[in-house]
Amino acid sequence: MHAERHPHSGDPVFDLHVGGKMETVSTVELTGPDELSLAYTPGVARVCEAIAADPSMTQHYTWVPNTVAVVTDGTAVLGLGDIGPAAAMPVMEGKAVLFKQFGGVDAVPICLDTTDVEEIIETVVRLAPSFGGINLEDISAPRCFEIEERLKERLDIPVFHDDQHGTAVVALAALQNALRLTGRSPGSTRVVISGAGAAGVAIAKILLGAGITDIVVTDRRGVVSSERSDLTPVKRALAQLTADRTGRSGTLAEALDGADVYLGVSGGTVPEELVATMAAEAIIFAMANPTPEVHPDVAHKYARVVATGRSDYPNQINNVLAFPGIFRGAFDVHATAITEGMKLAAANALAELVVDNLREDLVIPSPFDPRVPGAVRSAVAEAARLDGVARR
Amino acid sequence: MHAERHPHSGDPVFDLHVGGKMETVSTVELTGPDELSLAYTPGVARVCEAIAADPSMTQHYTWVPNTVAVVTDGTAVLGLGDIGPAAAMPVMEGKAVLFKQFGGVDAVPICLDTTDVEEIIETVVRLAPSFGGINLEDISAPRCFEIEERLKERLDIPVFHDDQHGTAVVALAALQNALRLTGRSPGSTRVVISGAGAAGVAIAKILLGAGITDIVVTDRRGVVSSERSDLTPVKRALAQLTADRTGRSGTLAEALDGADVYLGVSGGTVPEELVATMAAEAIIFAMANPTPEVHPDVAHKYARVVATGRSDYPNQINNVLAFPGIFRGAFDVHATAITEGMKLAAANALAELVVDNLREDLVIPSPFDPRVPGAVRSAVAEAARLDGVARR
Repeated sequence: MHAERHPHSGDPVFDLHVGGKMETVSTVELTGPDELSLAYTPGVARVCEAIAADPSMTQHYTWVPNTVAVVTDGTAVLGLGDIGPAAAMPVMEGKAVLFKQFGGVDAVPICLDTTDVEEIIETVVRLAPSFGGINLEDISAPRCFEIEERLKERLDIPVFHDDQHGTAVVALAALQNALRLTGRSPGSTRVVISGAGAAGVAIAKILLGAGITDIVVTDRRGVVSSERSDLTPVKRALAQLTADRTGRSGTLAEALDGADVYLGVSGGTVPEELVATMAAEAIIFAMANPTPEVHPDVAHKYARVVATGRSDYPNQINNVLAFPGIFRGAFDVHATAITEGMKLAAANALAELVVDNLREDLVIPSPFDPRVPGAVRSAVAEAARLDGVARR
Repeated sequence: MHAERHPHSGDPVFDLHVGGKMETVSTVELTGPDELSLAYTPGVARVCEAIAADPSMTQHYTWVPNTVAVVTDGTAVLGLGDIGPAAAMPVMEGKAVLFKQFGGVDAVPICLDTTDVEEIIETVVRLAPSFGGINLEDISAPRCFEIEERLKERLDIPVFHDDQHGTAVVALAALQNALRLTGRSPGSTRVVISGAGAAGVAIAKILLGAGITDIVVTDRRGVVSSERSDLTPVKRALAQLTADRTGRSGTLAEALDGADVYLGVSGGTVPEELVATMAAEAIIFAMANPTPEVHPDVAHKYARVVATGRSDYPNQINNVLAFPGIFRGAFDVHATAITEGMKLAAANALAELVVDNLREDLVIPSPFDPRVPGAVRSAVAEAARLDGVARR
């Protein structure tokens, strides 16, 4: 396939994508009738019977326990929005490739031709015997919250919405180190999260789990607080966990005035005059891609630690630091779920990797730091055991 | 994984199955940030946009057009019956491995946690954007007929129930050569098909398409004919296509008396005294696995050509002769369906491979004959063009 002419021939991105980015391969040799009779009929029947008699045998004799479905409906793909399931496939293949490369996890892209919450849930439940875990991807908020929550209730395998939790884990890891570097304690740090979508909600929750309690989340209309009458159920719950606890409300400008930390997952832009009102030695993670909410050059004028989602600046908040190791660790112990404890453990493990060499431009390891997958994997597996979700 | 201790350690079949039989791998190299930015964000976004603007770009820039879903509900697995989706996985992995080895087709096993016809159809329709074709597998009759027919109506990619059509293609190929060897013409050959399930129905239909018109199909109650009042809708339609055309009815014994050909896909056994009543130079394909309906030693006493489903006897009727090349050929031309013409072309191509060296013990090539996949592939692709279902 790779040699054929194609419409965008000569463009390096398209050239690389010809024929797709992945394949399935056999791990057994079938060179003749004898091998065939072991791997297929009649031999395989005995393996089927063993699993029928004891479903836990699936864990030994199939690829299922090492395989994750990367499931999307194509409604919130990268910064492109609702481009549909067919157009989402290149991202899902890319994700699958990253799962294998960084986690040794087999991954199958599943792009669904439905955006209905009930239909997505039913479909994934029906697929579940084929997979050891479900990675939800690029499903728009607030549907993604309900889909993930209900799938977690229905299934006894890990279900993980990476746009929420992958981002949250990496952001927390970097933030922990930024707080260390600037001498702040979690309990007395004022955080503004800009963006109340999948990533914003998940970041708020993981920060709370890490002891950071003074948080406001803002959307286009300002601070998400119960003083507002326009909140969705998800945002109402979020307000109670964040702004309401400290009685904050108002505009983004009011929120940023004196804030220690700005975490942008909104895709908007923050005017420089607002950035200028933040506390001394501020921390700015402008994670929107490709255009950060605050340009790094501007951010550096006011902040001591700056991170983005981009690979061409230091401190890249990249989910690939988290999801391969998280699933690898969960699969290692045949975990039935991915708990808050496992996510926190992943963040701590990531932060630890650079804690002895902390610098303003190194609060999070590089995605290509070879220590990353193993560190996350071990920490997550151990946390799964502690949380009682490990099956071995 | 492969070195770990496991419950059936030391048993060659189980040893081979540890960790499953397949994996996903990347076809692109991700050695650093530059490659990552081509294969994943930000580069991948342009590929997504190109597909969103023109869905046919999926055919160039994703793995979809080379990937088949091997879908089962686990209700009719090998000779084991309804063992459920988890226990069906080793067979589906085996099938996937065969797809790749013999057809270069990437295949993903999908074992569904539902046996409801509507739910299976809906689920596969929702999955369809992820795959270039659907291979239905080990779904019990008569549900398999409705599921396949309705999926063919709903989808514009190949949908193929291998237990029906794979078996039918290979049986027809072998039968054509057996007729040649015994000097029979299709139009004057009397055929008895024992078994009115998935394979029996499909064999009857493909024989009709190949000009063999004097056919009866039998189930446990005898010849499927409209004289009976106990027929399901599928069997009623089958009766009209077969026994009703020649006015035959009655018992298996009556059907076999003087018959030229016995095709067994029933799993039952035929007493020797019935076999003895067949025509001179009879043809017996006893395809039940692992126990043929007529033991080959018995069959050879009365028949000139004998075939089975087993690899340890000559003339193995093995679906692997057909399905990899059929999907390969269909994928080569981006076919929107697998037509009757494509199936007949596959059968003819298989038969042709041994026609110059026909012997009683060589009416069908071996599954490991290296010419098989290419011959089927070319014939199927050409037939797709003739039938107007090729997209390129």
